Amino acid sequence: MQVQVVEVGPRDGLQNEKEMIPTEGKIRLIERLVEAGLQRVEASSFVNPRWIPQLADAAEVCRALPQLPGVRYSALVPNLKGLERARECGLTEVAVFMSASETHNLKNINKTIAETFPVLRETTREALALGMRVRGYVSTVFGCPYEGEVSLDSSRRVTEELVAMGVYEVSIGDTIGVATPRQVHEVFAALVKDVTTERLAGHFHDTRGTGLANVAAALEEGIRTFDSSIGGLGGCPYAPGAAGNISTEDLVYLLHGMGYQTGIDLVKLTEAGAYMQELLGRPLPSKVLQAALAQKG
Amino acid sequence: MQVQVVEVGPRDGLQNEKEMIPTEGKIRLIERLVEAGLQRVEASSFVNPRWIPQLADAAEVCRALPQLPGVRYSALVPNLKGLERARECGLTEVAVFMSASETHNLKNINKTIAETFPVLRETTREALALGMRVRGYVSTVFGCPYEGEVSLDSSRRVTEELVAMGVYEVSIGDTIGVATPRQVHEVFAALVKDVTTERLAGHFHDTRGTGLANVAAALEEGIRTFDSSIGGLGGCPYAPGAAGNISTEDLVYLLHGMGYQTGIDLVKLTEAGAYMQELLGRPLPSKVLQAALAQKG
Repeated sequence: MQVQVVEVGPRDGLQNEKEMIPTEGKIRLIERLVEAGLQRVEASSFVNPRWIPQLADAAEVCRALPQLPGVRYSALVPNLKGLERARECGLTEVAVFMSASETHNLKNINKTIAETFPVLRETTREALALGMRVRGYVSTVFGCPYEGEVSLDSSRRVTEELVAMGVYEVSIGDTIGVATPRQVHEVFAALVKDVTTERLAGHFHDTRGTGLANVAAALEEGIRTFDSSIGGLGGCPYAPGAAGNISTEDLVYLLHGMGYQTGIDLVKLTEAGAYMQELLGRPLPSKVLQAALAQKG
Repeated sequence: MQVQVVEVGPRDGLQNEKEMIPTEGKIRLIERLVEAGLQRVEASSFVNPRWIPQLADAAEVCRALPQLPGVRYSALVPNLKGLERARECGLTEVAVFMSASETHNLKNINKTIAETFPVLRETTREALALGMRVRGYVSTVFGCPYEGEVSLDSSRRVTEELVAMGVYEVSIGDTIGVATPRQVHEVFAALVKDVTTERLAGHFHDTRGTGLANVAAALEEGIRTFDSSIGGLGGCPYAPGAAGNISTEDLVYLLHGMGYQTGIDLVKLTEAGAYMQELLGRPLPSKVLQAALAQKG
């Protein structure tokens, strides 16, 4: 059985890194990722570079993406302006985003949830009119750094709204990495009442070590698309264990071990992780990467 | 529902650390662990200190263990001589060990599997005659560093033999951290044909990031006892991501999040982890520990 892996390291990973990575290095990384067999890569973000200076070179990166058959790139866009910038670089896919919790949405997007819907709706409508694909992200589904628990009703409502706008897939995010498998079962069991499993993806952060356990739970609920970050990029450089996204290497190891196919070559993937680690000049959190490097000696 | 956590950091964790920890520090650590609510601690090992110099102070550590109601300590013993040393320190519980794979058993114990049985049998018989409790470990159940795959038949046979000797519990070990949830389901589903779930424990290493996913799978198979190491002790100090045992903090976070009770105070537990990290002078792999330290700022 096939599982899709969506590499979000160049965006979700790097936007949380303190270091600035040279544009050339980002492009090399993406080349290595697609060489390893990744077919979906979120390459960058067209939010205002004032907020995320690490990704201020989004246009340069997106213009240089290696075009290969079967490989799809996307970038995060907050609104029509971001969409326009993404389109100018030749992207054919974008991702819109919002939160399931009111406070996180306000702090992150500076709008209430209700105010965010029309912005994402017009962005999605325009992208679809341009023949582009649109993905949706829902953040803080499993917990909010400001509110704590997030109601399932809110997550269901936001997910349904995004699907109604025309996004082909909604990535369900554990933004602060608090979920455990029981909650993952509950959340996806609730979401699939409204949306088919094919339109849902799991987006887990490994902040408390439960990332892969949550993937296994989501697999049991029929989810077959997962977001991850090469090397587990996005952790805090001053706390080696405090990881961001689950690591692509660890995710692929888990999936292959469980008999799922991904089309990804794990050896080449860890080489991409090793390259990224060298660029950053510090060990990355991926355990499979560290195990591979330790075996090399 | 109750889950038992067996803290093996002072033994399985420290025996894999390069640094030597002062005896006093080990005792302080164990004091903090039982203060946090841990009721089962593997305090040290009575194998020949030539092989594990890090635990050469086993007798001193075991003599100084804080005696508290409901708290049980044990130590690893390879044979009658080790048992005698453990008993002299006042221990009332020991653990015997062997591998499910022939080559690992030979390299680790210098005996074939068949030659090991009588040694463990006489050790267990003597311990029981002295009124002690005996636990059993089976290593390399999910994979052997020398042979690769390990047959389920061999794991079943070794497990059954240990139970027949009179051990009250067999800890089923993923010594090199290669397991994924599917295999965990298969292994425990096979083992419970011969042995009740109450007599089995899961012992996972997090070498490839799958540790907690494997715990979740074992929970689904009815396993309610897990071994773990404070801070995720036992990783290689030169490869921060290459962890040893699953971390006790991460395990307890997972269990509590899934609605299981452990009797452990997670805040005090992370304080014990922080103490250990300070003793070692390097960040430990536990994600919950790092997240807690990052929040403190």
